[in-house]
Amino acid sequence: MVMALKKKPVTGMKDMMPDEMEIRDYVIHLIKETYKTYGFTSMETPCVEHIENLCSKQGGDNEKLIFKILKRGEKLKLETAKDEADLVDGGLRYDLTVPLARYYANHANDLPSPFKALQIGNVWRADRPQRGRFRQFMQCDIDILGEASNLAEIELILATTAMLGKLDFTNFTVKINDRNILKAMAAYCGFKEEDYDEVFIILDKMDKIGKDGVAEELCEMGYDRSAVDQYLGLFDEITPDVSGIRYLKEKLGDCLKDETADGMGQIISSVEAAKECDFKLQFDPTLVRGQSYYTGTIFEVTMDDFGGSVAGGGRYDKMIGKFTGQDTPACGFSIGFERIVMLLLENGYQIPSKRAKKAYLLEKKMPQEGILKVLNLAKADRAAGKQVLIVNMKKNKKFQKEQLAADGYEEIVDCYRDSIMEL
Amino acid sequence: MVMALKKKPVTGMKDMMPDEMEIRDYVIHLIKETYKTYGFTSMETPCVEHIENLCSKQGGDNEKLIFKILKRGEKLKLETAKDEADLVDGGLRYDLTVPLARYYANHANDLPSPFKALQIGNVWRADRPQRGRFRQFMQCDIDILGEASNLAEIELILATTAMLGKLDFTNFTVKINDRNILKAMAAYCGFKEEDYDEVFIILDKMDKIGKDGVAEELCEMGYDRSAVDQYLGLFDEITPDVSGIRYLKEKLGDCLKDETADGMGQIISSVEAAKECDFKLQFDPTLVRGQSYYTGTIFEVTMDDFGGSVAGGGRYDKMIGKFTGQDTPACGFSIGFERIVMLLLENGYQIPSKRAKKAYLLEKKMPQEGILKVLNLAKADRAAGKQVLIVNMKKNKKFQKEQLAADGYEEIVDCYRDSIMEL
Repeated sequence: MVMALKKKPVTGMKDMMPDEMEIRDYVIHLIKETYKTYGFTSMETPCVEHIENLCSKQGGDNEKLIFKILKRGEKLKLETAKDEADLVDGGLRYDLTVPLARYYANHANDLPSPFKALQIGNVWRADRPQRGRFRQFMQCDIDILGEASNLAEIELILATTAMLGKLDFTNFTVKINDRNILKAMAAYCGFKEEDYDEVFIILDKMDKIGKDGVAEELCEMGYDRSAVDQYLGLFDEITPDVSGIRYLKEKLGDCLKDETADGMGQIISSVEAAKECDFKLQFDPTLVRGQSYYTGTIFEVTMDDFGGSVAGGGRYDKMIGKFTGQDTPACGFSIGFERIVMLLLENGYQIPSKRAKKAYLLEKKMPQEGILKVLNLAKADRAAGKQVLIVNMKKNKKFQKEQLAADGYEEIVDCYRDSIMEL
Repeated sequence: MVMALKKKPVTGMKDMMPDEMEIRDYVIHLIKETYKTYGFTSMETPCVEHIENLCSKQGGDNEKLIFKILKRGEKLKLETAKDEADLVDGGLRYDLTVPLARYYANHANDLPSPFKALQIGNVWRADRPQRGRFRQFMQCDIDILGEASNLAEIELILATTAMLGKLDFTNFTVKINDRNILKAMAAYCGFKEEDYDEVFIILDKMDKIGKDGVAEELCEMGYDRSAVDQYLGLFDEITPDVSGIRYLKEKLGDCLKDETADGMGQIISSVEAAKECDFKLQFDPTLVRGQSYYTGTIFEVTMDDFGGSVAGGGRYDKMIGKFTGQDTPACGFSIGFERIVMLLLENGYQIPSKRAKKAYLLEKKMPQEGILKVLNLAKADRAAGKQVLIVNMKKNKKFQKEQLAADGYEEIVDCYRDSIMEL
C-alpha cells in the first residue's frame, strides 16, 4: 500500500531556502579557507556511527537524544527482539568529537603528528523541538591531536577568532578557564573531590541566577556555609586577565600547579599579541562548560548582542585513550555554525563581491537560431564570471521582471526574434 | 554497561582521509561556482526523510535499501509493535530527487519559477558492500523545475559538461535518448504498451550482453521472433546523431510525435553550438536508464577510460504532482560525485593554484618572546595567503622534516631561541 505523501520536512528539521543557503555556502567556504591557512586539513567521518561508540558515556545527555538506526536484512529479528539493543546497530552522530576520536584511533599511523583536523558536518539530536533549534544542525570543529603544549590552545583561538573577524564580527568575547583552576579553587575552599562535578554544575548557573542564587543552591545541597562563602568570595577578588591568574597562583598555593597558572597566562598573552582582529579576551574562573570529557583548558565565545555562546571548546586529553588504550593530547574548538548563520541573517549580512546577475528573457517559441545566439551570449557572460539565467518570457512580463529584480538580477535582456541577432 | 568501542567505521561506510578531502573540497567548490554561473541556487533538505515519502514507489529498488530510523520516546512502543512500520517513522534519504519533489511541493510559492536547484549532499543505501561502492555517498544534482521547454535539457547538459571540462576531463560522451522514442520504436514493432518496461529492462543490457543476447532474452520471454528481429534491426539503421533522429521520424511515422523528434534534434544542435568544452554528444536509442519516474528526455555521461556512467538524468514531469496533485515539469542531471573523485585520484589530479605551505619548527621550551615572534611571522604569511603550520621540534628532526616535505611543506624554518629574533 502506498501511504500518503508528506510535504513538510520531518519534525524538528528544516528545509534550507536559497537565501539562507547562499550565506551558508559563503560561510563554509570562508571557514575552510581561513582554517587551511592555519594548517588544518579537512577530514570526514560517516554520519552513521556504531551505537556502541555513541553510547560510551562520553556524550553526556546527548546520548539520550540519539536517532537510532534499525538493523537490516537477516540481522533484524523482530519476533525475538527483547529490547532496543536487539533492534539497533547504529545511530546518527550527535557531535563530531566522538567520531573524530574513533577516526584518529583507526588512522593515527597514516596521519601527521600533530594532526590538525577540520570537520564541517551535520549532527543530529532528538531534542524537544523549539524555536531556532533544529534536530539536524551543522557543526564546524577544529581539533589538534597529539600536541600537549599550549600551542594547540593558542592556534585554535587565533584561527577561530580570525574567522569570526572575517565575517565582520567585532563585539565578541573569548572567555577562558581551566578545569584544573576550577578544581584548585574548590579544593582550596575545602570541597571534596567527589563533589566537584555537582559544585561546578551549580556554579555554571552564575550568569542565570547570580552569585546569591549559586550560594543558596550550594547550601541547599548541604555544603558548609563558610566554605560556600569563601568559595564565592574568591571570585570577587579575581580580575578577568593575566593579573587575576597571578593572584590565584599566589593565593591558592599548593592547590594550583604552577604550570596550570603559567600556561593560562601564556595563552592569554600570546593570543593578545598575535590576534588577527579585535575582540575581548577574558579569564573567567566561573566558566565550566558542560561536557565531562574536558581535562584542562576550556574556552567559549560569546557575542554582546546574543545571549549564550557561539563557539566553545577545550582540552580533552583522555578521550582518544578510550579507543586506543593510550592517551593522546587533544584540544578542539567548535563553532555554533547555525547560530553564526542566524546572526548574519538577522544582521542583514551582505556577502562581499557577489557575482553580477544577468537574465535573458526569450520570446515564446523563439526560433533555433535565436536560441543559439542567446546561448552564446550567455557563454561569454559566464566566462566573464557573471551568473546568467535564460528563461522563457511569461505572459505577465512586468511581474516576471519584478521577481527577477527581487532575486538580484540587475541586468535583464528582452530577446525577440526580430531583434535578437543585433544583440 | 559500557560496550567495547569500535575503531573502524560502520560496515560499508568510509572515513575520508586528508588527501582525498582536499580533492573533494576543491571539486565541491568548483561545482558550486560553475553551476551558479548557470543560475542554479543552492538548497538543502534534511538527510532524514519521512518513511512514507521514501516508500512511495518512486525510488524503485532503492526502497529496499533504506536505513530506517527508530521512533523515539513515547512513540516507540516496543512491546506492542507487530512489524517494522510500528517501530519506524523516518529513514535516511536514498537520493536527492524524492526530497526535492517534497521540498518543491512545500515551498513552491516562495521559489522562483522556473526554479533552478543545486543540491550537494550525502545519500545512503544499504547495498551489499563492494569495492569502491559505499553505503554513504555524495550526490550532486541540478534540477530545473517548472520549465516545460527544451531549454531545461540544454542548460543542464551545458552546465554539467562545462563543470567536467573545468576538471580537465575531455574524453567523455554525453548519450541522449527520450522515453517517448523508446516507446515509439517498441510500438512500431508491435510490442504492447504493458510490455514496454520489461522490454526496456532487457534492451538496457545491450552494452553487456550484445544484440544477440538481447534478442535471445526477448525471445525467451515469449516475444514474437519477427517483432524482435524488426526491433533490433531498427537500431542498426540509426546513426548516433541528428540525422539518426530524422531517419526515425520518417520511419516511425505516427508512432513518434513530431515534437519529440524535433525537440531531440534541437537539444543536440543547441548543445553542439554552445558547449564550453570538447566532448562527444550522441543520440543513443538503446539508452534506457533504470528509474521508472522518467517521462521524456534521458541522458548519461560515460568516460572512455571508465566503464559505466559518471552522470545521468532526465525529465520527470509526473513526480511533483504526486505531492501536490498538480504536475510540474521537471528535469535533472545528477553527477556521480564519488566516481568523479575516484577518477581524479586515480589520474593523480593536481589541484590548480594550491596555496604555498610553510612550517615553523619551534625549539623545545621556546621562551615566550620567541613564540610571539613566530606567531607574528605566521600572521604575516597567512595574510599573504600561505598555509602555515607551527609545530614543536621533535627529537628526530630529520624525520620530522621529511614527513612535512611529504605533506607538501616546501618551506621549513628552524626556530631557535638564539636566532629567532633575527628572522
